[in-house]
Amino acid sequence: MTKKWVYAFSEGDGKNKKLLGGKGANLCEMTQIGLRVPPGFVITTEACLAYLDNPKRQLPEGVMDQVHAALVDVEKKSGRKFGGRTNPLLVSVRSGAAMSMPGMMDTILNLGLNKDTLQGLIEQTGNERFCYDAYRRFIQLFGKVALNVPEAEFDEEFNAVRDKAGARHDVDLSAKDLADISERFLVVVKRSTGRPFPSDPHDQLEIAIRAVFNSWGGKRAVDYRREFKITPEMANGTAVNVVEMVFGNMGGDSATGVAFTRDPGTGENVLFGEYLVNAQGEDVVAGIRTPKPVAAMAEEMPDLHRQLLDLRSKLEAHYKEVQDFEFTIEKGTLYCLQTRNGKMNASALVRTSVEMVREGLIDRRAALLRIQPEMLEQLLFPRLDPRFKEKPITNGLPASPGVAVGIAVFDADRAEKRGRTGERVILVREETKPEDIHGFFASQGILTSRGGKTSHAAVVARGMGKPCVSGAEGIHVDVRMRHARAGDKEFSEGTLITIDGTSGAVYLGEVPMIEAEFSKELATLLTWADEAARLGVMANADTPEDAERAVKYGAMGIGLCRTERMFNGVERLPIMIEMIVADSTKERQSALDRLLPIQREDFKGIFKAMTPRPVTIRLLDPPIHEFLPSEHLLVDEIDELEKLREILRGMKVLSDSVAFMNHARDVKPEVQKFTDPALVDEAIHKKRAILSKARSLHEVNPMLGHRGVRLGLTFPEIYRMQIRAILEAAAECQKAGIEVHPEIMVPQVCTAQELKAVRKWVDDIRVEVEDTYRIKLDFKFGSMLEVVRACMRADNLAEQAEFFSFGTNDLTQATFSFSREDAENKFLPMYNRMGILQDNPFEVLDVKGVGRLMEQAVQWGRRTRKDMKVGICGEHGGHPASIRFCHTIGLTYVSCSGPRVPIARLAAAHAALLGGEKIVDKAL
Amino acid sequence: MTKKWVYAFSEGDGKNKKLLGGKGANLCEMTQIGLRVPPGFVITTEACLAYLDNPKRQLPEGVMDQVHAALVDVEKKSGRKFGGRTNPLLVSVRSGAAMSMPGMMDTILNLGLNKDTLQGLIEQTGNERFCYDAYRRFIQLFGKVALNVPEAEFDEEFNAVRDKAGARHDVDLSAKDLADISERFLVVVKRSTGRPFPSDPHDQLEIAIRAVFNSWGGKRAVDYRREFKITPEMANGTAVNVVEMVFGNMGGDSATGVAFTRDPGTGENVLFGEYLVNAQGEDVVAGIRTPKPVAAMAEEMPDLHRQLLDLRSKLEAHYKEVQDFEFTIEKGTLYCLQTRNGKMNASALVRTSVEMVREGLIDRRAALLRIQPEMLEQLLFPRLDPRFKEKPITNGLPASPGVAVGIAVFDADRAEKRGRTGERVILVREETKPEDIHGFFASQGILTSRGGKTSHAAVVARGMGKPCVSGAEGIHVDVRMRHARAGDKEFSEGTLITIDGTSGAVYLGEVPMIEAEFSKELATLLTWADEAARLGVMANADTPEDAERAVKYGAMGIGLCRTERMFNGVERLPIMIEMIVADSTKERQSALDRLLPIQREDFKGIFKAMTPRPVTIRLLDPPIHEFLPSEHLLVDEIDELEKLREILRGMKVLSDSVAFMNHARDVKPEVQKFTDPALVDEAIHKKRAILSKARSLHEVNPMLGHRGVRLGLTFPEIYRMQIRAILEAAAECQKAGIEVHPEIMVPQVCTAQELKAVRKWVDDIRVEVEDTYRIKLDFKFGSMLEVVRACMRADNLAEQAEFFSFGTNDLTQATFSFSREDAENKFLPMYNRMGILQDNPFEVLDVKGVGRLMEQAVQWGRRTRKDMKVGICGEHGGHPASIRFCHTIGLTYVSCSGPRVPIARLAAAHAALLGGEKIVDKAL
Repeated sequence: MTKKWVYAFSEGDGKNKKLLGGKGANLCEMTQIGLRVPPGFVITTEACLAYLDNPKRQLPEGVMDQVHAALVDVEKKSGRKFGGRTNPLLVSVRSGAAMSMPGMMDTILNLGLNKDTLQGLIEQTGNERFCYDAYRRFIQLFGKVALNVPEAEFDEEFNAVRDKAGARHDVDLSAKDLADISERFLVVVKRSTGRPFPSDPHDQLEIAIRAVFNSWGGKRAVDYRREFKITPEMANGTAVNVVEMVFGNMGGDSATGVAFTRDPGTGENVLFGEYLVNAQGEDVVAGIRTPKPVAAMAEEMPDLHRQLLDLRSKLEAHYKEVQDFEFTIEKGTLYCLQTRNGKMNASALVRTSVEMVREGLIDRRAALLRIQPEMLEQLLFPRLDPRFKEKPITNGLPASPGVAVGIAVFDADRAEKRGRTGERVILVREETKPEDIHGFFASQGILTSRGGKTSHAAVVARGMGKPCVSGAEGIHVDVRMRHARAGDKEFSEGTLITIDGTSGAVYLGEVPMIEAEFSKELATLLTWADEAARLGVMANADTPEDAERAVKYGAMGIGLCRTERMFNGVERLPIMIEMIVADSTKERQSALDRLLPIQREDFKGIFKAMTPRPVTIRLLDPPIHEFLPSEHLLVDEIDELEKLREILRGMKVLSDSVAFMNHARDVKPEVQKFTDPALVDEAIHKKRAILSKARSLHEVNPMLGHRGVRLGLTFPEIYRMQIRAILEAAAECQKAGIEVHPEIMVPQVCTAQELKAVRKWVDDIRVEVEDTYRIKLDFKFGSMLEVVRACMRADNLAEQAEFFSFGTNDLTQATFSFSREDAENKFLPMYNRMGILQDNPFEVLDVKGVGRLMEQAVQWGRRTRKDMKVGICGEHGGHPASIRFCHTIGLTYVSCSGPRVPIARLAAAHAALLGGEKIVDKAL
Repeated sequence: MTKKWVYAFSEGDGKNKKLLGGKGANLCEMTQIGLRVPPGFVITTEACLAYLDNPKRQLPEGVMDQVHAALVDVEKKSGRKFGGRTNPLLVSVRSGAAMSMPGMMDTILNLGLNKDTLQGLIEQTGNERFCYDAYRRFIQLFGKVALNVPEAEFDEEFNAVRDKAGARHDVDLSAKDLADISERFLVVVKRSTGRPFPSDPHDQLEIAIRAVFNSWGGKRAVDYRREFKITPEMANGTAVNVVEMVFGNMGGDSATGVAFTRDPGTGENVLFGEYLVNAQGEDVVAGIRTPKPVAAMAEEMPDLHRQLLDLRSKLEAHYKEVQDFEFTIEKGTLYCLQTRNGKMNASALVRTSVEMVREGLIDRRAALLRIQPEMLEQLLFPRLDPRFKEKPITNGLPASPGVAVGIAVFDADRAEKRGRTGERVILVREETKPEDIHGFFASQGILTSRGGKTSHAAVVARGMGKPCVSGAEGIHVDVRMRHARAGDKEFSEGTLITIDGTSGAVYLGEVPMIEAEFSKELATLLTWADEAARLGVMANADTPEDAERAVKYGAMGIGLCRTERMFNGVERLPIMIEMIVADSTKERQSALDRLLPIQREDFKGIFKAMTPRPVTIRLLDPPIHEFLPSEHLLVDEIDELEKLREILRGMKVLSDSVAFMNHARDVKPEVQKFTDPALVDEAIHKKRAILSKARSLHEVNPMLGHRGVRLGLTFPEIYRMQIRAILEAAAECQKAGIEVHPEIMVPQVCTAQELKAVRKWVDDIRVEVEDTYRIKLDFKFGSMLEVVRACMRADNLAEQAEFFSFGTNDLTQATFSFSREDAENKFLPMYNRMGILQDNPFEVLDVKGVGRLMEQAVQWGRRTRKDMKVGICGEHGGHPASIRFCHTIGLTYVSCSGPRVPIARLAAAHAALLGGEKIVDKAL
């Protein structure tokens, strides 16, 4: 007995894509669930492989016999006869591998036509023009695809007839013209192949089948598979699908259309689609006639409309997802030709998924898993209207997602001023510094011409959830002139611009956008996600406002509160600078004494907003020189002040004093306000002290410098102030009946001794605060793991730390020895291009290197402290693939910026539902 | 039966220091090996602890009984009677814990004296003055130590008598004066304690024993143990040693002396020491009489001299080390009072050790182990004469060991000029740059006022084996004025100065020094070391001269040849700069084409020097901006050139042109040589191009920047040139019959993909070179492990790399997230002071963190490639403790700077002999 090479749609296994190809399996499945699909059959991929393996390129024994048998079956079901003079059966022949794969053979339509069957078709349809058109198309397609006739030869003849007929478009051609073309095409084929066009439909079919098989081994397909790394396990050989042709253009009781089972734009539970009466599929696409909405069918063809609704129900009941399907009505019979999962925007996807759960169609697991977490970004940030297609004036780095529109303003002071009047402002700078922070608050978004995704602008904007485009190197910013140029485009202060922090694009003028949509359905979905997840999701938040927002996004607490941000406020930075410039512990302490109540209030605000959730507060991390203005800026300011002093003294008029006075109007108000040389002297003195400090604090590699706990141990009074502010804030909240769970976290730790030293301060201050407030405090003490050595010593650190939090931004830099700013500007894009690295490790956690280290650290840490709480608070904490890895290695929670919390919640659910697939080598 | 609390010297276990204390055990041992030691006994540390544990502070039951019994035994052996009127037995009472420990009780001598026994002693010695002196000393010491009488009260009485007698020194006091003092001291004791001085020798002894025990729990001792972290495991309680007093001042047949069994200065095998006839030990120390060399005893007391030689033989035969011993001859009887291992300089230690092996006294293992590898440094670098005691004018960092003397010169050009005339030169700079390299060659040593132990100056000097003091911040260098100031000391060009790169000290003038001494014995010892070691020792060497030196030091190959150093030569740097500034690949290639033959010749020179040993060559590592002059310098130069141009054009005479012309004489010859404004323009143009490139190459964190293989992959032509130079050099050597084993090493690798890409070039160029030269090349391809991720992916990297070399300098920086330069200048000293870190991890390999990572990497790497050759080429490769760790984790070799090779060879032997003690937690 020969092998079974051919399966009728009624018998093929709808799940066996490997054997039947994706398309074939789909047709079998639709047939078997009772949808009316035109009859047909599939020739298996095994037949293809056997054919290609055969050195003589003979079809395997039995294939054509089985094809003929299957054809007989199709004839029976359709009531038509293949090659028949009357009521002829025409078929389409399509390739179809296990995966959709461009580069495979085109479809052949209308196979079975020859002079005889053509007449039958004309009789049947009464549409001579359509039939000749179908005929010439068949000859052309078959000739090209199955017989390798060069397409140009057909085009030449076609154009000759068209010119002769004086037709401008194809549609202007008459039936006669098309008949003429068909004749000429037959000649072309004969001339090109040396043989007449095969007129026997069975010959046509066999040639078509061979052609499909051959195309699998053809250059285009082989190249494609190599390029996209499609292995034989993924797809091996192509199947051939032979299907009866049905026609929607057989009169007023025929039609064709496409539909979604629900509205893909809104997710509303209504049939959504369009159709054309007495038309073919290509007419819908061609756009010559305007299709009607399917709702119209209810009146026009009520019975068929009911059938369509029935089809819709069957599709959803079976596929459990919104379907995008094609249908054709031939003489009052509705055929479903194809169906696939409908592509929808995030909003519709969320709504349909939640509603399908309520309808009992799917369970929560399915609803959660069908939505890729990253898709939610659409719903959480405003975005460009996708219909807007203009080119941006330049592109920078997508540093903080969302779209912002406002007038360009070139310094923070003016941004604040104009922002206060209610204007929408975009702060445009070469790069930003801590002293610009008030400008951030006042702005809709930030645009810089320098700096990467970890530049000050990017990090602060992300923290605030404001859109930011950084490192837009195409823009030349002239702050003094309040002017910017990008190529031949220019803009000045007051010009309306739009920045897209999701893509990095910058536009002149206001670009239409779509607002964020946090729907009820999304809220529901995320509640389900929380129930499914094992990982907790916390937010990074530095202010009470951030904290409130984090709660709205569903954060289970704050995983990272960066205390240094609090020092950047306008009224605080000067005190901070005073503290830094201080020459003695006493002076430093005096500045700290003024910072203490400010920090305490900050913490109280955050605790209140988060109650009763945990709040993890990281002690001061960055090197203190980051709080000082740049050397460059200071030198400039001192220069200007010196000039001003000379002018004021009237002792000497510099040749450029006029120019300077012109400048003076544009410079900072601080400089303008002096009218007394003595005051200028004082200002110069102060600036020089700052400059000298800035120089003494200069570091060769600030990323690896005097920061974090290193700094904390050098100037104990800073950390002590912060610890006191935290514990006093907690005590005051507790006294006021507000439940608080602070967690004090030490940054840049590399040895347990550092933790021990800080812990001693914490213990001492706890005693004092408890005595003063007469309460018992409840808090945790823990360590960042962002230094490689901390990971290597995690077992040891766990003796001091009650929790760990991976700082994967720094850890990635240290593990790769890549300075993020330098890498992203210099070699990382090249590395990605060359395939040396697949991803940017600062965006996608490097599980093989950094991840292996983290996994090791978790194991070691828990060896000492079994139930150790371990989280991640680097940017990776908001990245779905990284979250999955965090789940796998057993982290307790991830923490990310507020607006990414929903994404992370869904990703955490996915991780739990899809299980702990191990990504790195487990044989440690 | 009560416990045994007391051991006679003849019965105590000489190894049981814990029970008997160090001193007691030593006395027991000496007694038992047949040396004549005055009889005595030890009261155990257990007795001490039992006494201190007793709330009533009673001596444990049986102690005094056993003491009395032991005393009877001593009386028997000495023929004297404790408390006897004639021939009285006197004893000394000493504390003695398991470890030598200042802060414990002073020795009590002459215990047993009272009015009666004093008379007996006078009769016995016939020396009344000596006896009264002994008596008053006993009362004073006993009073102070055992009875807590304030010392001032004794001093008062003593001074009163001295003044009355009109004596200037103690020696001027007569026997009567001393008798008077004794009487007064007895009164002092009675007044202070309220009781008469104990006259019963047995009472004296018990009080003394209690006092010794009490001192263990006293504040001084407790503080000391806390300060030096002496745990009960190390020493718990003190023993008490009671020994018969013997006297060297009992006439012409009595004497006292100290001796070494061999000459501790030269190591020569002769008895070495001094003695005084009819004297006490303190007379030798007091220096009133000049002792004679022991050789003189051969004539003066031939019999005793023979006994002394016999003692010497017995000591060496037993202790197997050179002994430093004390002896006393009482009436013709030689007593050995104490012995310990003799402290010797390295040279003597090496000689005695090698000779003792030849004499069959010890085996090679013992000889190797008794010499601490670091000691050899004395023999390998010139050092200050230890007798020189003046204070340095300032101290910097000991950046490269050895002492150098020369005239101060403040720039490299002048250093070269003066050096060529034969002057000894010390190059003095604020900091050095690659363009100063010719100045290094011309100098004896380098002194900088800025930069740490990894500054350019330090690294280059170490590489060249020249002394260097870096970061001597106390010195203000004024290069223009060719002048420097350190506090109130100043020096100018031409002033003779001395720098000590071993200690960091800087002196004015020429300081006496001792040259390096690579003796025959050292060579022998190191040959034994090589036989004992499992680890190979290679050298870091960058030039043929370095390589030749490395061979002399016994290196088994070159473990690190840094190719970038080769670009710093005067004739090469301009081409390198041209290559860097090049705007196109073509321009770059043209510069590289000129560098190729230069590098090839370098490699040939090195291969020839090292044949047939392996030579590991690292491809270009540092960021290329390191080859450019500093921005600061360029801006200065451009300024000067611009001024020069204006002067030359005669268009404008600046007010400071005279000052400038004065400067001009001092500035670089390049600037002076221009006389044509057009040439100046050209020079300015060139400098500006370099400046602009330097700015575009600026990096935020250069340590983590665009360097190593990252740079190699960005500009493939650089690595391709280097690979070609290596392989062509190898081919040419091979053709000339010189055996070569090059190993090409890729720096900064973080993923196997990088290695794969470079390996492709290597494979391609190999084929070309083999074709051209018609030979087969034999070489290895490997990777640095200096990036954490490389360690985490070692299994993967091992698929590409045939060997690994740990770059622990960079790896330590990345593991700690410490930038070495910043850390050593900012917080590392504080960390060491606070005990947060025990050592500087850049000097002593951090085995707990970095080491754990290395161990892991070795295991993973060898999982892929079983016999993988793995080395270390960071500075730790020359540090003995680190070498021991490298042995433990199974490295194949260590590589260090040439002059440290002997130290490393000995350390490698120690590691093998002491076995693979695991230092880090093994439960990975």
